[in-house]
Amino acid sequence: MTSTLPLPRQRSAVAPTTTTPYLELDVPAAVDRFVELAAALPGTAVHYAVKANPEARLLAELAAVGSRFDVASPAEVRAALDAGASPETLVYSNPVKRRDHIVESAELGVRLFVVDSLAETHKVSQAAPHSQVLCRLVTSGNGSDWPLSRKYGCSTGEAVEVLARADELGLDAAGVSFHVGSQQRDPESWGAPIASSARVFKLARQRGLSPRLLDLGGGFPAVYDDGCRPMSAYGEAIERHLHLAFGDAPPATIVEPGRGIVGDAGTLVSSVIGVIERAGVRWVFLDAGVFTGLVETLGEAIRYRLATTADGPTGPCVLAGPTCDSADVLYQDRMVELPIDLAEGDKVRLLSAGAYTSCYSSVGFNGFAPLATRTR
Amino acid sequence: MTSTLPLPRQRSAVAPTTTTPYLELDVPAAVDRFVELAAALPGTAVHYAVKANPEARLLAELAAVGSRFDVASPAEVRAALDAGASPETLVYSNPVKRRDHIVESAELGVRLFVVDSLAETHKVSQAAPHSQVLCRLVTSGNGSDWPLSRKYGCSTGEAVEVLARADELGLDAAGVSFHVGSQQRDPESWGAPIASSARVFKLARQRGLSPRLLDLGGGFPAVYDDGCRPMSAYGEAIERHLHLAFGDAPPATIVEPGRGIVGDAGTLVSSVIGVIERAGVRWVFLDAGVFTGLVETLGEAIRYRLATTADGPTGPCVLAGPTCDSADVLYQDRMVELPIDLAEGDKVRLLSAGAYTSCYSSVGFNGFAPLATRTR
Repeated sequence: MTSTLPLPRQRSAVAPTTTTPYLELDVPAAVDRFVELAAALPGTAVHYAVKANPEARLLAELAAVGSRFDVASPAEVRAALDAGASPETLVYSNPVKRRDHIVESAELGVRLFVVDSLAETHKVSQAAPHSQVLCRLVTSGNGSDWPLSRKYGCSTGEAVEVLARADELGLDAAGVSFHVGSQQRDPESWGAPIASSARVFKLARQRGLSPRLLDLGGGFPAVYDDGCRPMSAYGEAIERHLHLAFGDAPPATIVEPGRGIVGDAGTLVSSVIGVIERAGVRWVFLDAGVFTGLVETLGEAIRYRLATTADGPTGPCVLAGPTCDSADVLYQDRMVELPIDLAEGDKVRLLSAGAYTSCYSSVGFNGFAPLATRTR
Repeated sequence: MTSTLPLPRQRSAVAPTTTTPYLELDVPAAVDRFVELAAALPGTAVHYAVKANPEARLLAELAAVGSRFDVASPAEVRAALDAGASPETLVYSNPVKRRDHIVESAELGVRLFVVDSLAETHKVSQAAPHSQVLCRLVTSGNGSDWPLSRKYGCSTGEAVEVLARADELGLDAAGVSFHVGSQQRDPESWGAPIASSARVFKLARQRGLSPRLLDLGGGFPAVYDDGCRPMSAYGEAIERHLHLAFGDAPPATIVEPGRGIVGDAGTLVSSVIGVIERAGVRWVFLDAGVFTGLVETLGEAIRYRLATTADGPTGPCVLAGPTCDSADVLYQDRMVELPIDLAEGDKVRLLSAGAYTSCYSSVGFNGFAPLATRTR
């Protein structure tokens, strides 16, 4: 076979992509972020949300510097215990739980469960008698890139009823929780739910209860494509709203950051497998996609910053994944800028991809292996 | 702890959900469907699309009754070979491939690859010299529940150039492929791309090429919530359009059904873990969700029919999954009807869930295990 036709640009002839994709996880960077967040919220216990990235070494190093954990299933409880956590320091924040999961977690020593309905309160009272409960309030989710729908949370009036019922059922009605939505860009969004929480505390005390713990949730952002406020801005806003709502007698507080700790510590390293012009539009195909960790690009909700091994002038392109599922397209409505010169074999690094990637990966759709993690 | 408060309805006190969720896969039903589809398209080779459900026993029993396979990665090639397929009967239909995947698949004996660009044609000519290629045409995707975006496929004019280039590069320019979109409800939608394919064949022959194979793609539907036409209607429409476009000298034809064969053969068996009233709306929480196999409910694209162990009058409800991710909600914009009487521990069976479920499952987000399969 001889041909004088020009060949498409390509960096190396054989298998340049065999080692990608993978998530490069900088564990010390996540630990630094934990320390920064803890410093921005003095007096607040920081519970890393295991769901964001359950990598064992990450959990162990976070535990070693004093992180507590937020869990949502027995498997996550075990991961936290394996990392060195004490079960009584865990918050089990899934408001609607499998009954067998509650039983199993209580047997492992978990004491603090979040609920948001009378039905769940009864379930916890049966499956984990005498444990502590927080009642979750609904929030608007405004200002969040990955908002929370109406799936969880109740009104302040309902919360008072839930806490009263919990007390009647022999549970410890410990307090209130809420969540302002993941990747929350507006520190002021903690204001309204903190005020609502203070109302619940007041009404609950009028009913003879003794709430004392407020779970301020997660939502602390990673740096995707358009920046975000520093952690100190979040700490300042939260302290101010706590003082406004509770005066000089604030409750004990905890937070549940996931993305805010691990998001910026991870880079998804992928390779270009093809660059194709389609009807005047450049399509760049990567060896990582929606089914290998990038689910949060659905609806183009989370926009990762990109870095490449190619350079020179850039132009717009659609970014697509490797499986032959048509849904495996990352950015199309709002195209990304990548070097004109980009070619097969070049690396594309998706920055701030430490959260909700490796754990969101499919079991191997289309025969593409789940996303591997390499820690450093 | 004693309480005289009414308890929420619940079918059994301890762990009713430990055995769910799982996919119940009726392999003989899938085989029957293969036979039905093959009978509706006499003379057309039926290649089951492994991506829809790669369960080993399913592949083996399909191979035993003469099914060929459509694959998209070396892992799928190996799964087909393990099932008893011959590598030269496989169609590798992923139009944009990792170079190392082409090399590996060619070493395993794969001969037929789909391309849709000059760049990919060069790649295949280098990674699998002298192999056969089909050029994929773009289609509208109209009438499909899971349409194909513009991710794959080129125009008829480009296809002729691709086939001519393939020939120059020593490849066998074997023909054309297209795909009308998954869960395609309109058998007539095969008409336009068959006519386009005939134009490509004619123009390619004018260039001295000898195209002889037409891949009619997949898209054959499963029965979700609002029914679909019988397979015979698809066969009749396709035969008619082939005759219209190609007259008395039609090319050899193949199809790549995935959902059409395995969709109706699977039932996702889940349990109710909670029923909660939220602001006047009933929320039913299942132990299966978006991250345990039900990704195709995103955007409420695929609406599974439901069957439950509860009965009596029904009412509307939101259906949600078990992880504490707010995106883990199945149907909310258009609520589902379930018995008013439904309670924790009741089973909810999602019918026609054999395709794009077990393989779409996450590796264990939130500590929830990937969806297991039980064949029968």
